[in-house]
Parts: sequence; C-alpha cells; structure tokens
Amino acid sequence: MSGAETKPLLRALAGETLSRPPWWLMRQAGRYLPEYRALRAQAPDFVSFCLTPALAAEATLQPIRRFGMDAAILFADILLVPQALGQGLAFGEEGPVLEPIRDAVGIEQLRSDRVSSRLEPVCETVRLTRAGLPEATALIGFAGAPWTVATYMVEGGASKDYRHVKGFAYRDPNGFAALIDIITNATVNYLAAQIEAGVEAVQLFDSWAGVLPEPAFSSWVIEPTQRIVQALKQRFPTVPVIGFPRGAGLLYQRYAAETGVDAIGLDTTVPLSFARDLQGAGAVQGNLDPVLLMVGGPALTKAVAEIRVALEAGPFVFNLGHGILPQTPPEHVGALAELLSQPLHRR
Amino acid sequence: MSGAETKPLLRALAGETLSRPPWWLMRQAGRYLPEYRALRAQAPDFVSFCLTPALAAEATLQPIRRFGMDAAILFADILLVPQALGQGLAFGEEGPVLEPIRDAVGIEQLRSDRVSSRLEPVCETVRLTRAGLPEATALIGFAGAPWTVATYMVEGGASKDYRHVKGFAYRDPNGFAALIDIITNATVNYLAAQIEAGVEAVQLFDSWAGVLPEPAFSSWVIEPTQRIVQALKQRFPTVPVIGFPRGAGLLYQRYAAETGVDAIGLDTTVPLSFARDLQGAGAVQGNLDPVLLMVGGPALTKAVAEIRVALEAGPFVFNLGHGILPQTPPEHVGALAELLSQPLHRR
Repeated sequence: MSGAETKPLLRALAGETLSRPPWWLMRQAGRYLPEYRALRAQAPDFVSFCLTPALAAEATLQPIRRFGMDAAILFADILLVPQALGQGLAFGEEGPVLEPIRDAVGIEQLRSDRVSSRLEPVCETVRLTRAGLPEATALIGFAGAPWTVATYMVEGGASKDYRHVKGFAYRDPNGFAALIDIITNATVNYLAAQIEAGVEAVQLFDSWAGVLPEPAFSSWVIEPTQRIVQALKQRFPTVPVIGFPRGAGLLYQRYAAETGVDAIGLDTTVPLSFARDLQGAGAVQGNLDPVLLMVGGPALTKAVAEIRVALEAGPFVFNLGHGILPQTPPEHVGALAELLSQPLHRR
Repeated sequence: MSGAETKPLLRALAGETLSRPPWWLMRQAGRYLPEYRALRAQAPDFVSFCLTPALAAEATLQPIRRFGMDAAILFADILLVPQALGQGLAFGEEGPVLEPIRDAVGIEQLRSDRVSSRLEPVCETVRLTRAGLPEATALIGFAGAPWTVATYMVEGGASKDYRHVKGFAYRDPNGFAALIDIITNATVNYLAAQIEAGVEAVQLFDSWAGVLPEPAFSSWVIEPTQRIVQALKQRFPTVPVIGFPRGAGLLYQRYAAETGVDAIGLDTTVPLSFARDLQGAGAVQGNLDPVLLMVGGPALTKAVAEIRVALEAGPFVFNLGHGILPQTPPEHVGALAELLSQPLHRR
C-alpha cells in the first residue's frame, strides 16, 4: 500500500462516493496565472519550457500553491510525442505547427526508438513535482489519445475540417492504421514511464474525438484507447485511467462501455442526467463551462451547485468541460475553490 | 393543391418513405464548381453577390443542371440577417467579419424595421429560381437559427471558444434574450417572405448548437427554434421546417422532441442507429461525411450504402452531415448522384 487510497482524487477514481468532490481544472497551470507567465518567460520557446524539468515542475505546482486543488496535472503538451518521434514541431501565434505527414514515406521517417530518451525530461518533471506536492494531492500524468495526436501530425496543426487526416484514414485505412499503431505504442511507453516516475493516474485527451462518424470512431478512437488501457492495466493494474473523448456526444456511451477506462471526462455539452447514468459504471469528471469560470459571480455559483447536486451522489471529480481560458481572473478560481470546500445544501 | 406532393423532397419531409431517397447537399452551390467561381467573379464582394438576384439565382440553379438533385437551396448567407439589422458585415480571407455587439448599446442600434426591404433581393432570387427549376425539384429556403447568428454578431466572426457570446449570455441573460428576440423576429419575417416568394420548405441552420451546456441549449437553441416554428406553422401550416442543430450530440433527442421541426438534419457524428430511432417522429436528413465525398471511390460507395441501408426504411432525405468542401471534385458529386439513382441491394 502506497497510501494512495487516502488521496481524495484516487478514492473518487476508484469508484468511491465522497462527501466533498475532489477537484482539479484542465489547464490549471497556464497563462491565466501571472506567476506562470513570468516562469514561461524563462524559456526561449514552448517546447524547451516543457522539456526543462525545473520549469515544468514549477508550473505544475503553481496552481496547487494558490488554490489547493486535489490533483496536480503534469505540465507538458500532447505534441511532445510526435516531436519525440522525430516530427518537426514549433508553437506560433496561432498554435502548434508541425511538418505534416500524409503518406507512407512520412510514416517511415518516424523513429520510435528515440521516444523514451527524448521524453526522459518529462519523467524528471514528474519526480521533481512529486517531491513538492502536499501529501493529499495526487499527480496526474497524461498523453494525447492517438486519434487526436494523429490529427495534428497529419494536418500539421489545428484544423477546421480535418480533411487531410480523415482523407488519409478513408483513402488508405491500412496506412493510417500504421500511423495510429506507432502513436499507440509510443503512448503506452510514455505513460508507463510517467507512472514509473511517480504519476498516480493518467488522462488520455482525445480532444478531437467529436468529429468522426461512428465507424471511424470505433477504429480510431475506441480501439486504440482500448489497447492503451489494456497495456497499462497489465503493468499497472491499480493506476486509474481517465478517458476524455471531448465532443463524443452520442458516442460517449460506447466509449464508456468499451474502452475500459476507469473514469470518463465529460465536456460541457454532456447533460447532467446522462452523466448520472454513466456513474453506474465508474467515476465521471467534469463539466463546468470554462466561460462560466471566466464570468464568475452568480452564474458560476448556480452552475457549480447544479453540477454538484446532479453528480455528488456517485463517484465524481469536479473539473471543467474544457481547458481554463487564459482570460479567466485567478480570483474566480479562488471563488470556485471556496464553493467546493463547502458541503452542498441540497434543496 | 399546388402539386407540391409530387416532389420527392416534400413527400419525404411530410413523413413518407420513398423507394429512392431524395437528395441534396449542403453548399451544393459553391466553390467546388468551376461555373460557380466564374459567376462569383462577376460581383465585387460576397454580400453583393448574395443580394444580386440574377447571380444568386444562377448560383442556386447551377448544381441542379449538373447533377439533378431533388432540391435546390436558395443561394444566400445566414449573416444577411445581421447585415439587414444594420450590423457591418464583410467577408475576408478568414471568413466573415462583423462589428461585434457586446452590450445593450449595441443592441439598441439594431434596426428591425429595415429587414424586409433590405432582404427583398433574396425574395427576388427565390422568384427567379423557381422559374428556372425543373418541375420535380423543390426549392428550400433557409436562415441561421438565432443562437448561431448571435454567435457571429457577438464574437464578430468565427470563434474557437465562444467566450464573448457565452459570456454575454451567462453574465446578462436578459440582455442577451433581447438580442435573441430581435434575431428570432427578423428570422420569422425573413422566412415568411421567402415562403411567400416561393420556397417550399425551410431549413434552420444552427451550426454552433453543439457548444452549449444543457440549460443554455434550452434557452438559446430550443426555445427560439420553437418560437420560429410556431410562428411559421401558424401562417404556413403545410410548409415543412428542417432543423439542423449541428453537433447537438446528446441533446439531439430533446431538439427533435421539443422544437416542433418536421425534419431533423443530422451531422456526421450521429450514429445511424440513433438516426433510425428519430425517424419514428419524422424525417431525418443526412449525414455523409463531406470528406468522404471529397475522397470518393470505394470509401464513398461503402458509406453511402451504409447510410441508405440504415435509413431508407423510414422518411429520409440523403445529404451530407456538413457543407460540401471546396476541394471536392465535381465528378464525385456525379458519382454520388449515380449511386443514389440506383435501388439499394440490401444484403
């Protein structure tokens, strides 16, 4: 026993119903915090920042010091995996820019053998962070899910229509499966290394799960996620896996039933009645609209209460339904911490 | 009787199951067609193009001549309504740009009294188009649904996070309701004018229905849509209304049950089993991934057959799940027309 069971986050992820919901926020370490912006200025670029353990660990710890969330989430980026595979990556004003891979030749140039060594700094970040965390605070590791990582690798950045990545998958499903396999294997190794270094739960971010028809969702979201969960469970049976298929909509049910994840992250559009039904099978996490946190005031108070009323009767981790907006006043996060520290007065 | 009941599209929208599905494609008039690009070059800007009846009618008719769809959809833009309300509108490289409205002062400057006269050219387009359409081809009118139109009016264009429009709605629901009311009333008048000019069905495009939590979805998607449908049904009881709440996911069911629309447009992510269940209450329309039409070949053939097998046993209109991509080879639309002209061989 590592004493993990005393951490509220891990108890909720194990299926326990707690009297006060554990909480953390996606992108809780980030640009809305002045101390983050000061720290970020110490690195020449975003990739270096992520791969400098002292800086990334400090970024991970900053929100915990201010707000005392029940979990820290490793500061890193889902695109470190393609970068470790050898794909060129830079972050510009408009977001990430990668040299797009659109055929077998591009796939052949990826180098799976370097992933572990290139991502070793992330494991050092995990060790440094663990040493700095309060005893009851869990550390969550993460990776992008293969479909979402593949969208960036093929599109070369963000996309409106996903026509390159879907086009690849529709035109040449075997070739695309080879890319998904490479990402899947790299992701298993990467998450295993994070766990060995000290993360106590992992989250798979499938940010673009919500753009696929059902047959493609089965092949590129559900199947690779199943394989990652199975591989991790074989080696680390007690480490919970949170799946976050953002925007999966009517396919959330299948994702929850088939992937094997312990807990499911809910985006902002998921109705609370549906979320409650999902709790029968495991913990749910979510799903406050980040814009409500930005707005604050009575609208925030009301929405937080509605979510708690609906979901606190089952295993539940309070979170946003998407990442915190950079425009969010830090005081609003403080107000949320205060709201969540109080017991719920049910009407 | 206008003879409307002999048009396949209108029969399907009225709930009839046809032996061959009527079809049309969102954005079937548009940049993927060389004849459209030539026509478009005759107007100095996109708004003028939409408001020049001879050009807009010709754009509407072009795909019908080439491919013989069962319906033409009026060539126009959902942002003509804000423009008619007095908001500045231009189309740049990156899409529409509006002078954003973010408070009561901005709302007060909108002028509802000019909407009819400013949109009169669209009615002339309807009359010209009707005169040029084959006898069995229906003409569909359309407008943006209030929530989607409001997102553009408040954000000032496309958005990644909808923080301005959601922020307005969360911070000042009464003020935001005033904006929604103005759009709702203008939309009723605009669609009524289109119907009087000759459109035989109307579609409400709620392209950004999929970004709201359930309570906001009720207030800003369902309620205004209900009001528009009720107002139109009072005046034009036999004209079908198609609702397209793109990305509504788990809220599709409520939209279908509560808005009163005759038929429901399904985006690409809606599972066919769910679509089949919806057919109990009325026609469904959709939902081929536009990327499959761009890719063509065996992947297109297979996906079309899967959709037909699932949905032809009930009232059904074949369409895409989103607008046609400009990169689509016109020959692929021809191949689709050919596929849809053949009876389905059920396995």
